[in-house]
Formats: sequence, structure tokens, C-alpha cells
Amino acid sequence: MKAITKLGELADFVKKQGCKTRIAVAAAQDSNTLSSIARAASEGWVQPILHGSKAKILQLCQDENLDASLMQIIDHAEDQSATQAATQMVRNGEADVLMKGLVGTDTFLKCVLNKEWGLLPPGAVMSYTCALELPRYPKLLFVSDTAVLPYPDLAQKQAMIKYSVAMAHRFGIQTPKVALVTATEKVGAGMPSTLDYALLCKMAERGQIKDAIIDGPLDVFLACDPAAGEIKGVDTPIQGEADILIFPNLETANSFYKGLMLFANAELAGMIQGTIKPVVVMSRSESAASKYYCIALSCLMAEER
Amino acid sequence: MKAITKLGELADFVKKQGCKTRIAVAAAQDSNTLSSIARAASEGWVQPILHGSKAKILQLCQDENLDASLMQIIDHAEDQSATQAATQMVRNGEADVLMKGLVGTDTFLKCVLNKEWGLLPPGAVMSYTCALELPRYPKLLFVSDTAVLPYPDLAQKQAMIKYSVAMAHRFGIQTPKVALVTATEKVGAGMPSTLDYALLCKMAERGQIKDAIIDGPLDVFLACDPAAGEIKGVDTPIQGEADILIFPNLETANSFYKGLMLFANAELAGMIQGTIKPVVVMSRSESAASKYYCIALSCLMAEER
Repeated sequence: MKAITKLGELADFVKKQGCKTRIAVAAAQDSNTLSSIARAASEGWVQPILHGSKAKILQLCQDENLDASLMQIIDHAEDQSATQAATQMVRNGEADVLMKGLVGTDTFLKCVLNKEWGLLPPGAVMSYTCALELPRYPKLLFVSDTAVLPYPDLAQKQAMIKYSVAMAHRFGIQTPKVALVTATEKVGAGMPSTLDYALLCKMAERGQIKDAIIDGPLDVFLACDPAAGEIKGVDTPIQGEADILIFPNLETANSFYKGLMLFANAELAGMIQGTIKPVVVMSRSESAASKYYCIALSCLMAEER
Repeated sequence: MKAITKLGELADFVKKQGCKTRIAVAAAQDSNTLSSIARAASEGWVQPILHGSKAKILQLCQDENLDASLMQIIDHAEDQSATQAATQMVRNGEADVLMKGLVGTDTFLKCVLNKEWGLLPPGAVMSYTCALELPRYPKLLFVSDTAVLPYPDLAQKQAMIKYSVAMAHRFGIQTPKVALVTATEKVGAGMPSTLDYALLCKMAERGQIKDAIIDGPLDVFLACDPAAGEIKGVDTPIQGEADILIFPNLETANSFYKGLMLFANAELAGMIQGTIKPVVVMSRSESAASKYYCIALSCLMAEER
């Protein structure tokens, strides 16, 4: 498999796989969600199962000129029951992906995390990875964690690496370069993330993290600019060609990717990992293209291998 | 005064002021430092006072074809004595700006922070602000703190705001909009920076922070995208038109600006504030244009008003 380097190639790849991924949508009465999923359904690679207010969904389909016949609609009076039912379908193997519609993130994640019928295995870490397409970078840049873990500890950082590496593998990147990013390349107690990063490098050396080239602490320049290593006199196997950036906390990852969305013409595809199946939570601020790419990503990752 | 919206306008403005700012350079035997300061000197608005190895400085001037006659050179055998002498010149009013050359940041900052002859008043907070020029933003974006304070507490965040606002005023921005940035607009204990931000807003309401419009917590979209407020249903006086972004920690600010330098074609001008006079610390990774702009910024801020 040739590595996927653009999000458009991702969508094409998923289409060509010939699968028809069953996506259960929680509280689907949302025009943004409906139009992106209807596009994927009309292209034949997604089978939507919409849980929510049937009347509102049909009205929105009419307003937006979307083909409602391509979508299975299951009527619910309340968001809570719609979300629970959508979650349980994924849990029971009746759907391959769970997607958030017009329901609060808190309610939605409570269902995902429900111990009896939710999607997170006991003890597993839930985390969010997104793939950024940047016009000024020659390949996709995977970034973790932009949305879920506020202050990941060592084990959570290890999980973030594992999930991002698994995602990169699905994109055809055999040995992704993982940069552990902070403000400096020096290890020191003044910045605790640098200590975790040094530990993670040693863990990789001992084979506790596999199938990737890992180094850190590094700053963004050393991670993504091939010229930076020589300028700064830092020797790193990342060589300014990172596939994956692991960030020390949510504030850093979130501000980094949002700055690039606004000012660097970036597009993204992102999803929650750690759950038994992909979970898609799209922000209203994201572009229509990014929403479509999020669906394609969840289909790529849902496929059994 | 019309607000300065580009870094090129900043340099033009400083030139037109007709001042000749005296810049003391510590360990000036560095081709990057020399060529940027020589450009400003040849344009007539900077008077360089170079402390360092005279032989090396003269050799570099010859190699790079720089006019050594425009620069006063004071010979030192060691970086430590060169840095101390440059710092003391600023302390004694014999120079208006201190600039780091080829000396380690640790040695340099130890001199700046020296209690007897350094540049930081007792009890003052030292912080770093930079002005970013982004092709996709209609004005300059001031960002703090990208380089000095690892995890600013409430008082340090208040100082960061005060310094950035003072800088924006010098750029002709009468009432800058200050966004207190994190990953969310919600105040909650799960993200401690949001608590500090709520407190800072109340402080501003009580007149403890003046001459600015301040709001937070906000994410980067709410801070810099005029469309985000309506999409997210958040009412903020920043209205997606922030002049200043205050970040919760160094990792966030540093990764944010470096991402934009690499992927959004940004240029910057930055300096240390809180000291009795501007202190310029330029990274080797910065472009020649950004280095020149850093010098212009220090001259703008050094001027007595």
C-alpha cells in the first residue's frame, strides 16, 4: 500500500475498499451532521442509521435536499435515549462507528463511557487523534490529543502514541516518526512533560512501544523542519520529518491545531480511539470538507484487519 | 498615530522617529547577530556597542562584508565578562537595549537577573511577548509568553497582560482586545488556567487591569475567527478580533507560534519585558527578517515617552 498523504486520497481509498460502513448517529437532527453523512451515503460507502427526532430529520432532509431513502431513521423523543440506543448498536455489533449529532458532548461521552453498555473496555484509555493536511508540509501530520485528555500522565501518553501509530499504519505509513513535542529539546524538572518524554524514549528502546521511530523532547521546529536539527545542533532520528506529534496537554494540542486551521489553510480528519469501535465527534466549527474526512477516517479505522 | 498592522511598517515607523538607539550586544562574535544589527546601523537608526572577541568580530565583518566602522567594539576574552559589561552599560544608562549574541541563554539570563547590576527591578516579573504577522490575519497578533515563563501563576499572567497591552499601545492600538486562550470557553476546575482567566476578567472589571478589552477562557477560534462566536453560541467582546493572545503556559504558546512560523508563513518580532530596558534574545532558527524586526521592536519599546 502506498502511503496516503492527502485527506482527499483517504476518502478515495475508503471508497475503493468497497465496504459499506454502518454509522450509528446519536441525535441526528442536525443539518451539519446530516449533510456530511448524506454525501458519504450517496457515494455508497456509508450506511447511516440515524437515531433522533424522525420528524426533524425528515424536515432537514427536505430543507437541504438530502435523499432520506438512503438512511435508516429510528425515532426517539429524547437525546438521551437516542444516544444510548446508537451506542448500544455499536456495542452489539449492529453498527461499526458511533457518531455524535445534536447532543451535548457531556451526555454523549457519558454514554460512550457507560460501564454496562458503553464502548470503552475496562482500563482502556480514550484519546483523540487527528490527521492534519497542511499545504506547506509534504505529508499528513497526526496530532494527539486535541480533544479528550486534559493532562495525560505517562500511561496515557503511551496510549496516545500507540493509537496514533496504529492510525498511521492504516494510512500506509509503515514506521511513522513520532515527535514528543514541548517547548525545548532539553530534559529537565522545570518542565515535567520532558521527563515523561525521556521515559517514553527509553520504553521504546526496550520494545515497550513498537513499529515507530520515537524521539523527544523536541520543539515544533525540530519535529517538522528538516533544517532545524543542524541550526540548533540537535541530532534526532525525527530529522524534521515527523508523521506524528504527541503534545503534553490538551491546551497545547488544541491551540496548535486551531491556529493551523485558521492561519495555515489546514483541513483535518479526527476521531476518538481506545473504544471498541471508532467514535466521531465533530465540532460545529469544522469545515464541510473536514466533516466528510472525519467520516472517511472512521470508516478506515472501523474496518477489521 | 495610525495602528501598525505589519512588521515592515514597524521598521519604517522606527526609522522615521529619527532616534539612534544604543544597543549593547553581549558576545557579539556571531554572524547572524552581526548581520542583522549591521543592517539597522547602516540604515542609521541603531548604534551598536559590541562586547566580545574583537578579533572574531572584525573577521566576521570582513567575511560578511559588514561595515565595522559603524560599530563600537569592546574587546573581552570571555563571554561572561562581555555579557556582564553589556548588561551594566544598560543598567547605567549608557545603552538603551541589551541583546544576546553567541552566549548561552543561561549565562545571559543570569546576568540580566543579577541583583546588584542586572536589569530586573526587585519583585518584577520578566516575560516574553512576540508580535506575529500572519498573511491570513488582518492585523498583528501579539502572543505571550512564548519563551520565558514555563507555568505562569495568576500574578505572572496579570503581568503578561500588562506588558502585552503596553506593547500594543506603542503600536498605536489604543484599546487592544486581549483573549485569554485555552482549549475551551467554559470555566471549570478540570482545567486550572480557566479559573485564573475568570479571575483576570473580574480584575479587569474592577479596574485592576486597564486600557484593554479582556475576555477568557476562549479557544483560538473564538479569539481569532469572527465567525466562531455565532457558530459556538458564545458571546464575547473579543468577537474573533483579538490583538493579544495570552496562553496558559510556555508549551502552548511556544508550539502555537512555531506551528505558524513553519506552516502559515508567519514573521515575528519579539523581546523580553519587565526589565528596565528591552532585552533581545533571538533564536538561531528565526529568519533574517524576523531578526531585523526584533531589533526594530526593541527600539520602539526603548524610547522614553
